[in-house]
Amino acid sequence: MEMMRANVFHGVNDIRVEEVLRPSAGVGEAVIRITLTTICGTDLHILRGEYPVKTGLIIGHEPVGVITDLGPGVSGYVVGDRVLVGAITPCGQCRACLSAHWAQCGHGDDTQAMGGWRFGNTINGAQAEYLLVPNAQANLAKIPDGVTDEQVVLLADIASTGFSGAESGRVTVGDTVVVFAQGPIGLCATAGARLMGAALVIGVDGNEHRRSVAKKMGADIVIDPNEQDVVAEVKRLTGGGVDVAIEALGSPETFKSALRCLRPGGTLSSLGVYSGKLQIPDDAFAAGLGDHKIVTTLCPGGKERMRRLIETVRAGRIDLTPLLTHTFTLDDIVSGYDLFGSCRDNVLKIAIRP
Amino acid sequence: MEMMRANVFHGVNDIRVEEVLRPSAGVGEAVIRITLTTICGTDLHILRGEYPVKTGLIIGHEPVGVITDLGPGVSGYVVGDRVLVGAITPCGQCRACLSAHWAQCGHGDDTQAMGGWRFGNTINGAQAEYLLVPNAQANLAKIPDGVTDEQVVLLADIASTGFSGAESGRVTVGDTVVVFAQGPIGLCATAGARLMGAALVIGVDGNEHRRSVAKKMGADIVIDPNEQDVVAEVKRLTGGGVDVAIEALGSPETFKSALRCLRPGGTLSSLGVYSGKLQIPDDAFAAGLGDHKIVTTLCPGGKERMRRLIETVRAGRIDLTPLLTHTFTLDDIVSGYDLFGSCRDNVLKIAIRP
Amino acid sequence: MEMMRANVFHGVNDIRVEEVLRPSAGVGEAVIRITLTTICGTDLHILRGEYPVKTGLIIGHEPVGVITDLGPGVSGYVVGDRVLVGAITPCGQCRACLSAHWAQCGHGDDTQAMGGWRFGNTINGAQAEYLLVPNAQANLAKIPDGVTDEQVVLLADIASTGFSGAESGRVTVGDTVVVFAQGPIGLCATAGARLMGAALVIGVDGNEHRRSVAKKMGADIVIDPNEQDVVAEVKRLTGGGVDVAIEALGSPETFKSALRCLRPGGTLSSLGVYSGKLQIPDDAFAAGLGDHKIVTTLCPGGKERMRRLIETVRAGRIDLTPLLTHTFTLDDIVSGYDLFGSCRDNVLKIAIRP
Amino acid sequence: MEMMRANVFHGVNDIRVEEVLRPSAGVGEAVIRITLTTICGTDLHILRGEYPVKTGLIIGHEPVGVITDLGPGVSGYVVGDRVLVGAITPCGQCRACLSAHWAQCGHGDDTQAMGGWRFGNTINGAQAEYLLVPNAQANLAKIPDGVTDEQVVLLADIASTGFSGAESGRVTVGDTVVVFAQGPIGLCATAGARLMGAALVIGVDGNEHRRSVAKKMGADIVIDPNEQDVVAEVKRLTGGGVDVAIEALGSPETFKSALRCLRPGGTLSSLGVYSGKLQIPDDAFAAGLGDHKIVTTLCPGGKERMRRLIETVRAGRIDLTPLLTHTFTLDDIVSGYDLFGSCRDNVLKIAIRP
Repeated sequence: MEMMRANVFHGVNDIRVEEVLRPSAGVGEAVIRITLTTICGTDLHILRGEYPVKTGLIIGHEPVGVITDLGPGVSGYVVGDRVLVGAITPCGQCRACLSAHWAQCGHGDDTQAMGGWRFGNTINGAQAEYLLVPNAQANLAKIPDGVTDEQVVLLADIASTGFSGAESGRVTVGDTVVVFAQGPIGLCATAGARLMGAALVIGVDGNEHRRSVAKKMGADIVIDPNEQDVVAEVKRLTGGGVDVAIEALGSPETFKSALRCLRPGGTLSSLGVYSGKLQIPDDAFAAGLGDHKIVTTLCPGGKERMRRLIETVRAGRIDLTPLLTHTFTLDDIVSGYDLFGSCRDNVLKIAIRP
Repeated sequence: MEMMRANVFHGVNDIRVEEVLRPSAGVGEAVIRITLTTICGTDLHILRGEYPVKTGLIIGHEPVGVITDLGPGVSGYVVGDRVLVGAITPCGQCRACLSAHWAQCGHGDDTQAMGGWRFGNTINGAQAEYLLVPNAQANLAKIPDGVTDEQVVLLADIASTGFSGAESGRVTVGDTVVVFAQGPIGLCATAGARLMGAALVIGVDGNEHRRSVAKKMGADIVIDPNEQDVVAEVKRLTGGGVDVAIEALGSPETFKSALRCLRPGGTLSSLGVYSGKLQIPDDAFAAGLGDHKIVTTLCPGGKERMRRLIETVRAGRIDLTPLLTHTFTLDDIVSGYDLFGSCRDNVLKIAIRP
Repeated sequence: MEMMRANVFHGVNDIRVEEVLRPSAGVGEAVIRITLTTICGTDLHILRGEYPVKTGLIIGHEPVGVITDLGPGVSGYVVGDRVLVGAITPCGQCRACLSAHWAQCGHGDDTQAMGGWRFGNTINGAQAEYLLVPNAQANLAKIPDGVTDEQVVLLADIASTGFSGAESGRVTVGDTVVVFAQGPIGLCATAGARLMGAALVIGVDGNEHRRSVAKKMGADIVIDPNEQDVVAEVKRLTGGGVDVAIEALGSPETFKSALRCLRPGGTLSSLGVYSGKLQIPDDAFAAGLGDHKIVTTLCPGGKERMRRLIETVRAGRIDLTPLLTHTFTLDDIVSGYDLFGSCRDNVLKIAIRP
Repeated sequence: MEMMRANVFHGVNDIRVEEVLRPSAGVGEAVIRITLTTICGTDLHILRGEYPVKTGLIIGHEPVGVITDLGPGVSGYVVGDRVLVGAITPCGQCRACLSAHWAQCGHGDDTQAMGGWRFGNTINGAQAEYLLVPNAQANLAKIPDGVTDEQVVLLADIASTGFSGAESGRVTVGDTVVVFAQGPIGLCATAGARLMGAALVIGVDGNEHRRSVAKKMGADIVIDPNEQDVVAEVKRLTGGGVDVAIEALGSPETFKSALRCLRPGGTLSSLGVYSGKLQIPDDAFAAGLGDHKIVTTLCPGGKERMRRLIETVRAGRIDLTPLLTHTFTLDDIVSGYDLFGSCRDNVLKIAIRP
């Protein structure tokens, strides 16, 4: 029985890198040796007990690696293939998947939302030397030669989620877009809005460094909410409100502000993870008669999504490597969580190398 | 100077039928002699002071009539043409209209929502002998011979709004749909969901008569919220939640229940007029990660919308005349408001004949 | 080694019911005992050598049956479950499937169209006692109690294809639709257009019996092309052309007529299988400037599509059993082909019972 | 009665700059003094008699100017406003416009395609000192200070059409796109595909200069059809075919090649003006079963379309001025036609200054 090192959740504020059993591939599964992964904001929520997972779980959900084991029923791959796997791993074969709601993949339970997110949530995740990939046929995206691990690792979650904020909001040529919060996901939403042809992209963040990165990622204008009335300024800049507002923080306050920024017929595209009640305020939403839309999106996954994003990177349309500000080894991952959690040192994303 | 009789708002709980100036048509306008109109729930809100309009305004927004006057710049019509005019009268030529957000027609002010609703809101309305129709070229829908005023008058608002609940929710063949409240708009939403191919339409209302009408209009199953836990029952009937929930009441409670009925990836199509804050509860919405959508719709108007709905009636796809439960003369309209406001006598919609 | 009886293609005009090996289920597969299947027009093309398949293939692609064998990796089913399987069996896990082009499922080859159609085309089909179902997890649709085999067998191909003509054409409330040819698929397209809210459905067929069935399935008006100039009559009835024209024959002539029936901005939804060149004539298509669309659709398959269609039948929205005009045993299937090929006796679809 | 100079069509190969009556604005109309216009490929077709217009017509349809006269019923503008007017001038108020098919605006005749194109086609056009703008309320797009005439004049037709090739083809992030022909419209289609997030844009043209401009406008790869088998090369580069092929030439041969380049489920977005029969060849289109789409688009117009494009230019997303390779005065326009018609001197678009 082979062992591996992995970052295991032992309880609130208690993660430990330790020896655990190395997985092997069953029917329809694959195992990859992780070559690069990351720490995500969601992992921090788990560590702090804000999002519950079971004790003993390996966390992490942004994996790049090399195939070491292929189970029966997986074809078109060989051991040694270098692959990216999305944070969300749809089976492709359930009711949700066959309705094009891949992120809501139920794995047999049609009634639960978010079922497509399994890594580091309901099954072992990527902060380990090896990772078992379920529904491998639908989830292994080969990485072409000439594209590095660093270029693609953030596609697994951050970029797929951020771009989807613009995609679900149906950003189109000439649109005005405001993106609330310029953390890693918000920065990718900013880049996504730009990539899809928005004529004005406004980034909002209280952190000066993040505002400066936002301008590099595609924001035409940035707003510091500590200095300006964001809603008033957005309305002024856009002559009455944006076509699409993207919420990338998960705060009830920014959710409300995003709604207030919309022009009649506009769309709030929500990416945030909310705890506690959201409110739709009196003064936004036109009493329900403004033809407004609120759309929410969980990170799109699956190998075809990853293939498209890899091609977008390969074509030079976007460069995500500036977001990988720090690197830690797997054995030193707890220090990485500490840095990431403190937001020190202009950290954006932390790369982990097993 | 010719006069006419009209129902004028004089203040909260004070409407009076009186003599006022009869309008004449300016550039791009038409005047129609009203042959049939109605009282709408929105008119009750105005009467009760729950929706503010200015004193002296003629209210009402569901007009059928005969053209008596055509201003310069209106072509393709002659005096004597029998027409239906939608409750919402888009100009067709502003930013919102040219973006296909006709109901949010700004008439020069791009920043205000609901601008397309003018009759009985910002300009004189239909509870009168004559009505001035703005942007007549975009808003006069000819009624074919063989189609009666009674068959089409409810298309102006009730049916256009109700159907739009199903349309904005993108109901498609095989969908499951729940419609909260079976008043006139909810009944039309029920009919609309059926018309668009939903395989299961569930109607919710506390009133037994309305539930019985709902079954005639297309509901497969009706639920009395006083007798059953609606959310639990809907989830049971649908194996986990509906594809589309339509809110047709305007209550924060039904808004919440509608959200709770959605399956992952489902859409809440909201038709209600809300006063006060709406809440998105903790236990619905999957913390923002369920790929849910909330869409709001203001009654689609304009002559092409009306033409399509008239053709739908003419083809026998829907019969709205059972909803016209009572008729009053214009001079007796105050009695009509009294009956309508009290919900007595199984009233659904009241026809007004000048 | 167990044997079964099956209808095997031996060459042009040579099919024989004979003993062949009974299949067993490998990884991700299932075997069902066929309880009801049919003969399809495509099978006739195969028999006549108009569509090439390899010698030795069992043909047929509309299967209802009972699960007898489940391979590794298939969960949520038990032996004895009664199921419908679509004619098209997407894997759910390839590039095409994960792009929502399930019918173009490539099974590993992204470049070939029509890859989702495997039964009786590239693998053994349903005119047999037993059928091996590939990618079973994505393709076994349970049939609820109270729904008969006869009610659902035509959903596998005919109804899924016919409805898709209306769906791909984006038929909506109030549309005008013409359907060229009222064979089984055209009849289902007619029913589908009606089901989705079209206000006027015009059915075209030279056969009087089929025109009479068309009226029962939802056509408001039928046209005999031998008696009337179809394009002129459609333009007259619709005041200038239809919103959607559905081609359900596969003839270059009806393809051209369908184009000529479109109003500016209209859509030709093509279901036909064409051999030989199609032409887009001078006098249709407005030199390419009419904002016309031509969309083609291969029968949507997969268990979720089948589930939705079964629910539509169960709700009583459509009854397909009148289309099953004749029944033969598997052993007598050659007589069935003979009757079906001759179009004698008002045959529409032939049921086959092993 | 005031006069002006204008370029008048007198018959095949006979245009003359001469004195004609200067227009004045009636109800709903405006007059603008042209400050910049162009010669379009369509004008060449007219000159050569390939597209018939009536003798005596002023041609040209890409106008930038200053308002000199406003008719009754036009509000929100003052004399002196600098405006761009689209080549297509929808009324906003007819059946087609109210169905969002603005380019098919019927002006009272619902049955004719292309009705939205009036300038230099059915009414006097822009190669003149003054231009009468019909439906002015829907068609005058103000040009902000700081944006030059040269920056926006090509938005009226070339860029709106070219971009629409990508928009109607629904190009999205990660798509592969091939654009056939890199004339002014094809170059804008190339730019549009890039602007909307395509990961690979392939430009096809036999002219070396145009291929080099294509690379500047956004093509990743260019192909010379005289040197390479375009279909084979596109399939090789894309691993089996593009998501979207844009035809921007109007030749039956490139139409066929574009079809052949599609992957299953792909879309041919056609911008060309075709004379003579188009054919859909045997070896493309998968006998009608490939889930392919063919969409055609006439240049989107109206003031909101122009506003969006102006904002896209103002934001620096695209610079069209390199396409304006030559400038002529109105009086010397015949020399401009001569140069443009001969394709000499790497001409792309010719600016005309009255």
